[in-house]
Amino acid sequence: MKQMVEQNDTVVLIDESLKKIIVDTNWKTDKIRGIGVIDPKTLVGKEYGSKFVIGNKQFWVLSPSLQDKLQGLRRQAQIILPRDAAHILMNCSIEPGQTVLEAGIGSGSLTIALASAVAPNGKVISYDIRAEFIEHAMKNLRQSGLTQYVTTKIKDVTEGIDEKDLDAIVLDIPNPWAAIEHAWKALKVGGYLCTYSPLISQVEQTVKTIEQYSYIECKTFENIQREMVVSKYGTRPSFDMLGHTGYLTFARKVQVL
Amino acid sequence: MKQMVEQNDTVVLIDESLKKIIVDTNWKTDKIRGIGVIDPKTLVGKEYGSKFVIGNKQFWVLSPSLQDKLQGLRRQAQIILPRDAAHILMNCSIEPGQTVLEAGIGSGSLTIALASAVAPNGKVISYDIRAEFIEHAMKNLRQSGLTQYVTTKIKDVTEGIDEKDLDAIVLDIPNPWAAIEHAWKALKVGGYLCTYSPLISQVEQTVKTIEQYSYIECKTFENIQREMVVSKYGTRPSFDMLGHTGYLTFARKVQVL
Amino acid sequence: MKQMVEQNDTVVLIDESLKKIIVDTNWKTDKIRGIGVIDPKTLVGKEYGSKFVIGNKQFWVLSPSLQDKLQGLRRQAQIILPRDAAHILMNCSIEPGQTVLEAGIGSGSLTIALASAVAPNGKVISYDIRAEFIEHAMKNLRQSGLTQYVTTKIKDVTEGIDEKDLDAIVLDIPNPWAAIEHAWKALKVGGYLCTYSPLISQVEQTVKTIEQYSYIECKTFENIQREMVVSKYGTRPSFDMLGHTGYLTFARKVQVL
Amino acid sequence: MKQMVEQNDTVVLIDESLKKIIVDTNWKTDKIRGIGVIDPKTLVGKEYGSKFVIGNKQFWVLSPSLQDKLQGLRRQAQIILPRDAAHILMNCSIEPGQTVLEAGIGSGSLTIALASAVAPNGKVISYDIRAEFIEHAMKNLRQSGLTQYVTTKIKDVTEGIDEKDLDAIVLDIPNPWAAIEHAWKALKVGGYLCTYSPLISQVEQTVKTIEQYSYIECKTFENIQREMVVSKYGTRPSFDMLGHTGYLTFARKVQVL
Repeated sequence: MKQMVEQNDTVVLIDESLKKIIVDTNWKTDKIRGIGVIDPKTLVGKEYGSKFVIGNKQFWVLSPSLQDKLQGLRRQAQIILPRDAAHILMNCSIEPGQTVLEAGIGSGSLTIALASAVAPNGKVISYDIRAEFIEHAMKNLRQSGLTQYVTTKIKDVTEGIDEKDLDAIVLDIPNPWAAIEHAWKALKVGGYLCTYSPLISQVEQTVKTIEQYSYIECKTFENIQREMVVSKYGTRPSFDMLGHTGYLTFARKVQVL
Repeated sequence: MKQMVEQNDTVVLIDESLKKIIVDTNWKTDKIRGIGVIDPKTLVGKEYGSKFVIGNKQFWVLSPSLQDKLQGLRRQAQIILPRDAAHILMNCSIEPGQTVLEAGIGSGSLTIALASAVAPNGKVISYDIRAEFIEHAMKNLRQSGLTQYVTTKIKDVTEGIDEKDLDAIVLDIPNPWAAIEHAWKALKVGGYLCTYSPLISQVEQTVKTIEQYSYIECKTFENIQREMVVSKYGTRPSFDMLGHTGYLTFARKVQVL
Repeated sequence: MKQMVEQNDTVVLIDESLKKIIVDTNWKTDKIRGIGVIDPKTLVGKEYGSKFVIGNKQFWVLSPSLQDKLQGLRRQAQIILPRDAAHILMNCSIEPGQTVLEAGIGSGSLTIALASAVAPNGKVISYDIRAEFIEHAMKNLRQSGLTQYVTTKIKDVTEGIDEKDLDAIVLDIPNPWAAIEHAWKALKVGGYLCTYSPLISQVEQTVKTIEQYSYIECKTFENIQREMVVSKYGTRPSFDMLGHTGYLTFARKVQVL
Repeated sequence: MKQMVEQNDTVVLIDESLKKIIVDTNWKTDKIRGIGVIDPKTLVGKEYGSKFVIGNKQFWVLSPSLQDKLQGLRRQAQIILPRDAAHILMNCSIEPGQTVLEAGIGSGSLTIALASAVAPNGKVISYDIRAEFIEHAMKNLRQSGLTQYVTTKIKDVTEGIDEKDLDAIVLDIPNPWAAIEHAWKALKVGGYLCTYSPLISQVEQTVKTIEQYSYIECKTFENIQREMVVSKYGTRPSFDMLGHTGYLTFARKVQVL
């Protein structure tokens, strides 16, 4: 473990409101949102885990964890939140060494979570029909140091999947049902399909399509997270709460009877 | 990928109610709960992903995924459910290659999830004061093929932690506050502490103790999962729902100011 | 306030598990479920609020409250739970003196709540197409002493509503959309429509139909209740929890533009 | 039922965003928040349920329902929301004709709900130690036309309750435990106590105190409400959701053994 920030390190700066900014010490002097103008080289030599002042704000400096990578990414579109990514990883049984397909790539938040979970010897293949989304997501992946685990394709997953024997396929597209048959063909036996959809009608059409193919263990979940506030005044659930993100549907490929 | 069950394989049998039984083809003919008397060798040669009859029940046979390992374990005590394990892995930023400590081991459910996430080059150290729990959990880990990633110790975590520079520490003990100081010393800078407690008073004492040490990002969450039932009659949330499992508190080590 | 149970009183007996049995002191000696064989006349002279033994069980005796009437009713079908009835009363702005229609009557649980809320000078009209449900519900209403506020009709609400200028209409039928137009005609200006449906597809068809008529404030809610367990061991949400009862849709009649 | 707004009527104006403003036609020309300068007399002659323009906004005009009275009140402090008031009314079995005590009065939101439920022959007694809160709440009650059912006292409920044989007592004060003994003495046998508290520690101290007196059926609930959004795009739970309001604890007086 490094004690100090060294040249070529990528670090996360965490301000007092817990906002996170990922900074590469090789970047040139520039204005960084949330910090102000900074020469990233001045971070070299700071002690990891220490707190210091930049401009008029205090920051902790740390080596970026998976959470930092996810919370510090630049959003282009609505992202799959870490809490939902956690359930996708678990319910799809993602493990190091696996080969996993996702479509679409969005801002790369799920891509980061998947890449981190299949490393150091696995692979994420990511389809998206929008080149600019892939480009933006790859910036986030570079910042997270995870590009080596990711292959991208400008491709519509509803038109077919090139790969075979996949361990898992995650669909975050408006019409996941249109890729269910392709997914079945591309998955290994026992492999997992997951779809993420905000609307009930999407879930219904997806589940009905899944039932037409040889999948088992088809389940749909919604995850709700409550934060508990513990303070000197007492303990209570937070007054603020996110109402809905999306429904997660899971299923698993078996053989045709 | 294997097409057929081979000698020495461990498989999962899934019945029509989705109950899962993990079977090692090397086991001797015996009565297995949920199946009846079976000679596991007769499974050799079955096609993975196929369905067949044992006794008067139908089973799918698959190579065990992480979910199968978790759902097929033999419980000795209340376990940390996969849904909570998912949040522990994500909020502690568990990645392949890390070294993680847990206490206590319980039936080994979280141990399996952690071992699977830090493989192939990481390590889980598991403390428990009850030798019989360690023994039982190790049976579950053997069945899951994950023992190589796990070291156990008969040791009370509230009396000290031998290891240093740990990436994460997860405490599932009745008095986690008593190990907060030890945890701070044993964690690497930026490393994560997680405690799992069913009671509010446990959360309060834990958070108040965490605030006395150099931790940041201290947050407590409760995760609620709703299953959606999609059938030919229509779609609705399930009438059945688990009310409460436990509160998860997370915090992260920084330097003393 | 009476101190003692007198002749002709109806009382509620509450056992230690909080199960409630409503008993009319005029009933003949009989076997009553949850108590055993009892001559209800022996209750006369007991002090209200006291606890005594019948058979081998202890019971509190009280004058029945609305909650007792609802919890002590005999179910023939799935009932609208008091927690949902509470929201119906509030969101329909039910007040003493109003005239309210419900369809169908079910086991009379919502009928009891409505009758209690519109008393002493209001009226509940209850339609059901099944004579035996009306008969069963009226038994529950008699036991609750609320029959004077209720008029029943063997009638299909989707074929029309006889009444005019109603303060509120509550539909607990499988196809509420088929009565939306009739409801608009039967409501007073500013009057409330409520539908109770377990399925999303029912909600969707209902809301889409409501939008074709002059209703405002159309909203759909789901109510989730968590019980908190406070014991000497500590405080936590209950491990048991009801997942889903039904969706409540509300809307309010205005003039045609 | 009146067809037209008449002199002396109090009406509710509902704008397109469903914001509600209660207006008394006897008020003088004035600036009203949410409307602008208006001479309330110009509302006389408008058809109930019709929509018309004031300034540059469109409004529906209706005779105020209980919901309108609650949603249209002027807040001075955090109020008990209608959804929580609904559960208080139901779990305390509030019925027309009862005598109910509340402390404190806050902005009068619960007072309005209670007054509306005990009318036309019941009574609400409301204690508050702050004269200005009583004054403000009475303005809201006057606007709602419910003052005749309410008596206020500048009095600390933790120092004693003057009344006897009360049907229910609702405590919305920071230290409800300090009034539990007084409440027991003031309630009728079978009468309900309710406390509303945002913090767990308040619930714990309240429940522990309740257990020292002759109360039964002591239960604590938290109510969570989810809105469902039904639109042309599809149906889903709302992304916005209120996380926590307060815990409701209920108990019921019986005789000392």
